[in-house]
Amino acid sequence: MPDVLKNDRFLRALRREPTDTTPIWVMRQAGRYLPEYRATRERAGSFMGLAQNPEYACEVTLQPLQRFELDATILFSDILTIPDAMGLGLSFAQSEGPQFARPVRTAADVAKLAVPDMDGELRYVIDAVRLIRHELHGRVPLIGFAGSPWTLACYMVEGHGSRDFATLKMMCWDQPKLAHQLLDTLAQAVSAYLIAQAAAGAQALMIFDTWGGLLGPAPFREFSLRTMAQIVATLKADPASRELPVILFSKGAGAHLAALADTGCAALGVDWTIDLADARAAVAGRVALQGNLDPAILRASPEVIRREARTVMDSYGNHPGHVFNLGHGITPEADPEQVKLLVDEVHAYGRTLRAR
Amino acid sequence: MPDVLKNDRFLRALRREPTDTTPIWVMRQAGRYLPEYRATRERAGSFMGLAQNPEYACEVTLQPLQRFELDATILFSDILTIPDAMGLGLSFAQSEGPQFARPVRTAADVAKLAVPDMDGELRYVIDAVRLIRHELHGRVPLIGFAGSPWTLACYMVEGHGSRDFATLKMMCWDQPKLAHQLLDTLAQAVSAYLIAQAAAGAQALMIFDTWGGLLGPAPFREFSLRTMAQIVATLKADPASRELPVILFSKGAGAHLAALADTGCAALGVDWTIDLADARAAVAGRVALQGNLDPAILRASPEVIRREARTVMDSYGNHPGHVFNLGHGITPEADPEQVKLLVDEVHAYGRTLRAR
Repeated sequence: MPDVLKNDRFLRALRREPTDTTPIWVMRQAGRYLPEYRATRERAGSFMGLAQNPEYACEVTLQPLQRFELDATILFSDILTIPDAMGLGLSFAQSEGPQFARPVRTAADVAKLAVPDMDGELRYVIDAVRLIRHELHGRVPLIGFAGSPWTLACYMVEGHGSRDFATLKMMCWDQPKLAHQLLDTLAQAVSAYLIAQAAAGAQALMIFDTWGGLLGPAPFREFSLRTMAQIVATLKADPASRELPVILFSKGAGAHLAALADTGCAALGVDWTIDLADARAAVAGRVALQGNLDPAILRASPEVIRREARTVMDSYGNHPGHVFNLGHGITPEADPEQVKLLVDEVHAYGRTLRAR
Repeated sequence: MPDVLKNDRFLRALRREPTDTTPIWVMRQAGRYLPEYRATRERAGSFMGLAQNPEYACEVTLQPLQRFELDATILFSDILTIPDAMGLGLSFAQSEGPQFARPVRTAADVAKLAVPDMDGELRYVIDAVRLIRHELHGRVPLIGFAGSPWTLACYMVEGHGSRDFATLKMMCWDQPKLAHQLLDTLAQAVSAYLIAQAAAGAQALMIFDTWGGLLGPAPFREFSLRTMAQIVATLKADPASRELPVILFSKGAGAHLAALADTGCAALGVDWTIDLADARAAVAGRVALQGNLDPAILRASPEVIRREARTVMDSYGNHPGHVFNLGHGITPEADPEQVKLLVDEVHAYGRTLRAR
């Protein structure tokens, strides 16, 4: 029997209910900017060694909670666990990012892909969720996550990171049926993965569409948004995940907030290039918003960090439904002390806002 | 006495006057996708050896006109000629992009910067403009260009390319006066540079704000837009440049089109993530629009290229003021044959549109 949740600010904000102050968590909060994370990674030997060991994954997931009064925690893992479990052979080349030994290029490659077994190849993730949920003792909610089908396909087809992921784009244009087959398989896999995370104890689910913003408006709707909408519908139909709020984050897709809100998700992540007042107007109160401080601001001086945090909160205004976060993942250069003062400022100013 | 201009479609479209068909040029049309460009670069020994030699620069500028029925040509050069002329020591590390030997970091570094002499350090650019204009014999107009102060400062302060250019952002937040001093010096240099290009024969001027889209809304207005507006005002006040249309291109700044149009420029470049119909609505007929095919589409099949080109043109509609272009520079992987069919399709479909 899991512990009773002691801090439900994050979940209340996702439901657009009033909270005593603004909840905050930080994308990639368990990460390289923390010396204790680097120490655990050192012990694990490699990034995948860290991600694939539930004890290590649990350890680094909980690390930021020892330092900061965060209102949510997120499973430590990687978005590319699904394609790795599909047999593509994931590795992280030194400072060059992810690489797949067997990229997906042909119809035969796509046909071979199967939804991984959540009790098999992906069991280490589900075990990590279960362990983290247990070790949290109800302190804050646990967010499960996955990459969006479009974003996973970007890496799977290109084989590695890219400025424009033109190889997948070419597949979308020249072989749209094949691209849809790939994306549909991934949508099934992401749905099953998120449902399994929910069943193991995740209390909110987030989909990272890191590369949706590389697409023009029509291809975004066809190849990124559509599959995310499918996943949200599947999650809403499953008893394990039905009650869980879903957060969609399409980076660089500020023009598509209204369409993203139409998927039935609970909240949208917003990057720092959009004013939250404009984002609120775009979604017209239908979803909560999560964001959106420029991660680079964490390298500025304390008074600037505090001022810019307040600017973000003022742009959202004194309305329910704001989860404070960065507009993208925290970078390794960030100073943990700056994160601490950000978290404290958000809580303090959130109380001030509500007292007005 | 320069030759009479034989093809004024591009300039007419920038003035939002009717044209017989839609004019097209391609950002980075003199580039690595052309074997004849690679041959000239080989002879020149290096990228800077190519850019700094007016005869070579003229040769590669004119190369795409031999193959394609383009309606404009753009000076072959690099946006970083100004900081190089300021003494920062520009080099292009093999496949790693631009590097400055002496990046700008401190107040003393900024204080040392002076507007380069257009008859001195930057004479090779001005000579190239004069030579190209002469060698064009009025076939199509010649576009002169510069990087925006924000974008130049990104490289100057970071010292090289970067995902987030956080070093300049930190200067903006922690030392805003110093950042403004740097940007103001660059605005003066860019203005003088574009005026000198106009005096040497450029018939339109374009400012590339490649990294403006990395900024949040308020910093974009303060650190990128403001200096571009200053430059447009300076160009409008100088007899050499007063009559020349100015095109501003802030990549990833789709949320700021209305504000960019307020600068007094003639046209805005639009990247491929925005629908041109939305862009037209945003600027409300005040400026022409240039764009916006996803450059990756040039790697798709001929029928897809033709279809997507027509989609771009349909989204603009049958109104004056559209200059067809890619939404960003052409990539080295593009096939020149695909460029040819794009150019021909734009002209053919432009005539069809006008006949409706």
